[in-house]
Amino acid sequence: MKNISFILLLLITSVSAQQHPRMIVTVGDINVMKSSIGKYPLFDKTFNEATVLVEAALAAPMDVPIPKDAAGYTHERHKQNYTEMQMAGLLFQITGKEKYARFVKQMLLKYAALYPTLGPHPAATSESSGKIFWQSLNESVWLVNTAQAYDCVYDAIPPAERNTIEKDLFRPMVKFFTVDQSSVFNRIHNHGTWMLAAVGMTGFALHDTNLVSMALYGTEKNKRGGFFNQLDLLFSPDGYYSEGAYYMRYALMPFYLFAQAVDNNRPDLSIFEYRNGILKKAVFAMLQLTYTAGQFIPFNDAMKEKTYLSPEVILALNIAYKKFKNDPSLLSIAREQNSVSLTGGGIDVARDVSYKKEITPFDYKSIELRDGANGDEGGVGLLRNGTSDDQMLLVMKYTGHGLSHGHFDKLSLVFYDQNREQLQDYGSARFVNVDPKYGGRYLPENKSFAMQTIAHNTVTVDEQSHYQGRISLSEKYHADRNFFSAGDKHLQVMSAKCSNAYAGVEMQRTVLMIQDSSIQKPLIVDIFKVDGNKEHTFDLPFYYMGQFIQSNIKYTAFSEQQKPLGSANGYQHLWKEAEATANGMVQFSWLSGNRFYSVSSAADSQTNVFLTRIGANDPDFNLRRDAAVILRKKSRSSVFASVIEPHGLWDGTIEISRNSSSSIANVTVAASDEQGTIVRIDWKPDHHWFVMVSNGSPSETAQHTMNVNGTVYSWIGNTAVQKH
Amino acid sequence: MKNISFILLLLITSVSAQQHPRMIVTVGDINVMKSSIGKYPLFDKTFNEATVLVEAALAAPMDVPIPKDAAGYTHERHKQNYTEMQMAGLLFQITGKEKYARFVKQMLLKYAALYPTLGPHPAATSESSGKIFWQSLNESVWLVNTAQAYDCVYDAIPPAERNTIEKDLFRPMVKFFTVDQSSVFNRIHNHGTWMLAAVGMTGFALHDTNLVSMALYGTEKNKRGGFFNQLDLLFSPDGYYSEGAYYMRYALMPFYLFAQAVDNNRPDLSIFEYRNGILKKAVFAMLQLTYTAGQFIPFNDAMKEKTYLSPEVILALNIAYKKFKNDPSLLSIAREQNSVSLTGGGIDVARDVSYKKEITPFDYKSIELRDGANGDEGGVGLLRNGTSDDQMLLVMKYTGHGLSHGHFDKLSLVFYDQNREQLQDYGSARFVNVDPKYGGRYLPENKSFAMQTIAHNTVTVDEQSHYQGRISLSEKYHADRNFFSAGDKHLQVMSAKCSNAYAGVEMQRTVLMIQDSSIQKPLIVDIFKVDGNKEHTFDLPFYYMGQFIQSNIKYTAFSEQQKPLGSANGYQHLWKEAEATANGMVQFSWLSGNRFYSVSSAADSQTNVFLTRIGANDPDFNLRRDAAVILRKKSRSSVFASVIEPHGLWDGTIEISRNSSSSIANVTVAASDEQGTIVRIDWKPDHHWFVMVSNGSPSETAQHTMNVNGTVYSWIGNTAVQKH
Repeated sequence: MKNISFILLLLITSVSAQQHPRMIVTVGDINVMKSSIGKYPLFDKTFNEATVLVEAALAAPMDVPIPKDAAGYTHERHKQNYTEMQMAGLLFQITGKEKYARFVKQMLLKYAALYPTLGPHPAATSESSGKIFWQSLNESVWLVNTAQAYDCVYDAIPPAERNTIEKDLFRPMVKFFTVDQSSVFNRIHNHGTWMLAAVGMTGFALHDTNLVSMALYGTEKNKRGGFFNQLDLLFSPDGYYSEGAYYMRYALMPFYLFAQAVDNNRPDLSIFEYRNGILKKAVFAMLQLTYTAGQFIPFNDAMKEKTYLSPEVILALNIAYKKFKNDPSLLSIAREQNSVSLTGGGIDVARDVSYKKEITPFDYKSIELRDGANGDEGGVGLLRNGTSDDQMLLVMKYTGHGLSHGHFDKLSLVFYDQNREQLQDYGSARFVNVDPKYGGRYLPENKSFAMQTIAHNTVTVDEQSHYQGRISLSEKYHADRNFFSAGDKHLQVMSAKCSNAYAGVEMQRTVLMIQDSSIQKPLIVDIFKVDGNKEHTFDLPFYYMGQFIQSNIKYTAFSEQQKPLGSANGYQHLWKEAEATANGMVQFSWLSGNRFYSVSSAADSQTNVFLTRIGANDPDFNLRRDAAVILRKKSRSSVFASVIEPHGLWDGTIEISRNSSSSIANVTVAASDEQGTIVRIDWKPDHHWFVMVSNGSPSETAQHTMNVNGTVYSWIGNTAVQKH
Repeated sequence: MKNISFILLLLITSVSAQQHPRMIVTVGDINVMKSSIGKYPLFDKTFNEATVLVEAALAAPMDVPIPKDAAGYTHERHKQNYTEMQMAGLLFQITGKEKYARFVKQMLLKYAALYPTLGPHPAATSESSGKIFWQSLNESVWLVNTAQAYDCVYDAIPPAERNTIEKDLFRPMVKFFTVDQSSVFNRIHNHGTWMLAAVGMTGFALHDTNLVSMALYGTEKNKRGGFFNQLDLLFSPDGYYSEGAYYMRYALMPFYLFAQAVDNNRPDLSIFEYRNGILKKAVFAMLQLTYTAGQFIPFNDAMKEKTYLSPEVILALNIAYKKFKNDPSLLSIAREQNSVSLTGGGIDVARDVSYKKEITPFDYKSIELRDGANGDEGGVGLLRNGTSDDQMLLVMKYTGHGLSHGHFDKLSLVFYDQNREQLQDYGSARFVNVDPKYGGRYLPENKSFAMQTIAHNTVTVDEQSHYQGRISLSEKYHADRNFFSAGDKHLQVMSAKCSNAYAGVEMQRTVLMIQDSSIQKPLIVDIFKVDGNKEHTFDLPFYYMGQFIQSNIKYTAFSEQQKPLGSANGYQHLWKEAEATANGMVQFSWLSGNRFYSVSSAADSQTNVFLTRIGANDPDFNLRRDAAVILRKKSRSSVFASVIEPHGLWDGTIEISRNSSSSIANVTVAASDEQGTIVRIDWKPDHHWFVMVSNGSPSETAQHTMNVNGTVYSWIGNTAVQKH
């Protein structure tokens, strides 16, 4: 009996191994899809959209053009082709209509005729160039999609034509990836993930275990490259992906697709449980790195238009939803997406979005995500307050560099409110796929401005970017977490340090979000301490988003003539609109949406203030004309102590304006030494707060005592606020 | 029997005349409201919001402060007070709860104590200053609301206290309006409308027919001022209001409120039928002057935040809905408003929005609205294409000046697509009610920039605004309609002329919206012909909204240093970002939302091009930093022939970009003389259109023949398009 069972099991496994589709969707998934038509509106919508798209493709002349451009017709055509093939394959499976399979077959044969004739792409600019596309990254994406299409129509293609397709297209392409581009393939980077996923998925489609092994363990199968290695090194133990939120969204697609393929074909590897469920942690970390309108926090190279509505997120969320026992916290995002993938998980989501009565909002949290494979290379801190309807979000970045798309932005701050940025991260200077804008690639200003330190809400020293603006140097280091505490909504705090961005300069930034019954929205207190070994120039910008309303400083406006703030390291891109020398606290206000915002900063006559606008030395108009206020202090050491205050109400429809002026009368640094920093905040008309921050080693229990002009201030732990 | 009936009628009339409320809402309306609670969600929402607001007022300390500021606490407090009184009055009527009447009474007594002590407002700046507010306009609004409150609580106030309130507050205020400010009262202007409505409504509340007569016929009752005079002169026969859309919205409130009061008390005047139903025409004209997101077209002084969601529009729409037999085309806007007024009409709207299954979208039309009391002072042309979901709108303004809020913008063009402006009208430089911005008043830059011709998409001659920028001169003239035709969706056209903006210069602008099956969205062809008596400099700006993508011109960018374009008449506010001399067609493109837009203009080496940005000589940062491309031609006469082309697709979420470049290869003026202008448009790769416009007197039947280098072009009527 035991033997019979074993043989039966073998038989089933063997039959199953031969069945198609067998990669992202299984025969079982297809059966569920067939029986779901007309049952779940969200699935029907996706299915109908796919049908419309593929029917249009079937009706149009098929074009597999000779590759030419990096963002023009041929680029877009080849992208469209793989999308159409992938969808046609699925439609063939769901409907059984031969025309869909025939479409895929015919197009694959055209590619099989074209591919062997191709040399390097004519618009290629880098070593990792492709043949169909200007970079091999796009070619990997092409294969990830096409391998799925092939898997779906495999049984409908006669063996002789399968042979042509495999011999002239898949095999040489896979060879190109694993031999010619093995350095990309084995690289710990999203380009490597896409490439190995493409090869591994092709392996499953072609029943080639050797390809699957290379995908899992690297071309040399020594685990120095490959999927497991990437799962080990590209994610921190918290699921943070080293390149940041925007690229995480992109990278999760091959991670999730290939994981699904592995899960379907090599369940013995328990891929979704690997490394304490790192793939689950990753998808939740990615979602925590979005804000209430779905937008990804745009640090490092990032397009601000990207939201969790993008197809990569839909796919990963669908797979995660099914795999991780239908975590209901994902459903509210799925409802916003209003689309599902044609996968097993997509069906589950469509079913539950259609039939669950109450869908709770996604659980946005105040959270720290550590960076580095071991979680000891700094991280990202996120402090939140309020429900998704009216959430404030404060982000500080103190990670490692983040590979080639990283920016020189240690301890940079981003502040969101009212569904939008209020203190922005510029993101990247790029118009993805817009051909007239440098072929849709990263623009020169990405490097000359967007990556530079002065483009961020953090301190630049001596007009030079962190790590001299050198990636090779920056990649060796990271900032460090100091402390993070979000348990008490009335006093959330995050603190980080960086001691290697500049030789001899120690930087520590502590940001507090203080909720108090006396104020409408929480107050943000930002204490940025810099200690140098000699006289330095410290510049701290606030890239506010909105209409400038007022300032308390008497500035000189350059009304008749404008010049750049500096000549290099991003400064050359800032018009100097006005300049001032402070005389006590510097305060400025802007209007954005339905609120006013004010920044009030401790300052003295040694503090200079610049009102700037991006756009100098930008002859092609590649940069947005956004404004900043920059505080400049010259000294060995300094403390930038600022209060960021949302206030009042503005409603243009009913023409109501309330509390358009700040409630802060003064901000001063009462004391700052090795033990701690004490910032005094004076409220109008007559009460004040003392915000105390420890500058020593983090400790929840350490006792601190400081004497300020005869008055003794005591507190326990890393921070405290005394209200008078 | 006859006599008994007559006596009975007299008796009823007399009783009815004594009844309160009797002004905006009647006893009948109140009874309907009482029985509607819990029946119509939209009414319940409004009723509940009013209750929350008034209950909060009852719970707070009552404050009637000594007037001090123009946009600060005391200003806002007095505004809040009249809103609270007006609502409390209605709540008293609906609920019968004495506390609401008591609240109104107590506050009125406080005002009665304060008012006699007041001199001119300390922040007053003009002759038409108020006492409670900095301008008497606000004081009129105060009384319009307070008279309603008084009407509602009249019977609940003991006669002795009524006497105090009338003697110390209403009577002196009415005297202030009708004697001290009689010039405002009798003025043909929205300030006059508010003031006469306030006095007339007070008349109804106080049973004072003399006040009502002054409101109807002017302080001298000679019909040189007063409501009828305003209905005659402020609206054109098409219902266009001379100040433009933004102020029309504001002015319609007193027009509709007072009309409702007149209708309730003097049905013999048939006020809503007056002048062929001018009040109905006005409300529909106002709504046609909005775009798909509800925003008012912002020509003349206007705040762009204003939409048809504002309370003035809700009120007018509600009254109109009931009065004009519940025109269903208003309901879709009412649904967007998601609020109703506490009036009889509000109940009707709430009922029908709640229970009508299908609500058709508001019927936006291509329409011409003539200006001037007799309809012979120019007008506004609006060409539309597409449903409300994806509507293109083109507006040309060729009206009279539009009183004190008019701009020097004859023949100016505004272009909307994707629910937003693509070629903008700047609107006004003002932050209404934002105290730090010049007390919320019009900013100095409103006059120095926003009103000037160069701030508009029309031709400025010799860097001088139309009519030398003098209102006194501009008010004497108007532009003239030439022809308007919107019957054929494939070829809509509007044309206007102006011969008096500059001595010796004739201007004619013809704009065509051409729908063709070969293009995704209609093409706009803009032909602006200027004929001078000597050499002039003609400047035509395009204030595009979005990210600059590319241009075909080789410009010099002022990357290292920026200076203003000129020194006066608005030019001093434009930074010159780049400059070029044309060499054939000038083409530039921008990205906005999900589309690209290109302007392609006929040009030659005599054409200069400036890329500009608003913001020079603006030390207080009062202006938005928006961009324009300005074409400059120097000659006696010239034709600016431009094609405005929406094209392609951009989707940042899925990172798709298609057709980011224009499809126009060339635009040339093939010929232009007294008979007509022929513009040749060359499409990529190889077809072309000839657009022909008559320059003679408008005629649908006139035959035109022009010989262009030996080729003869013939057409019948004002315009024609030949496609090859």
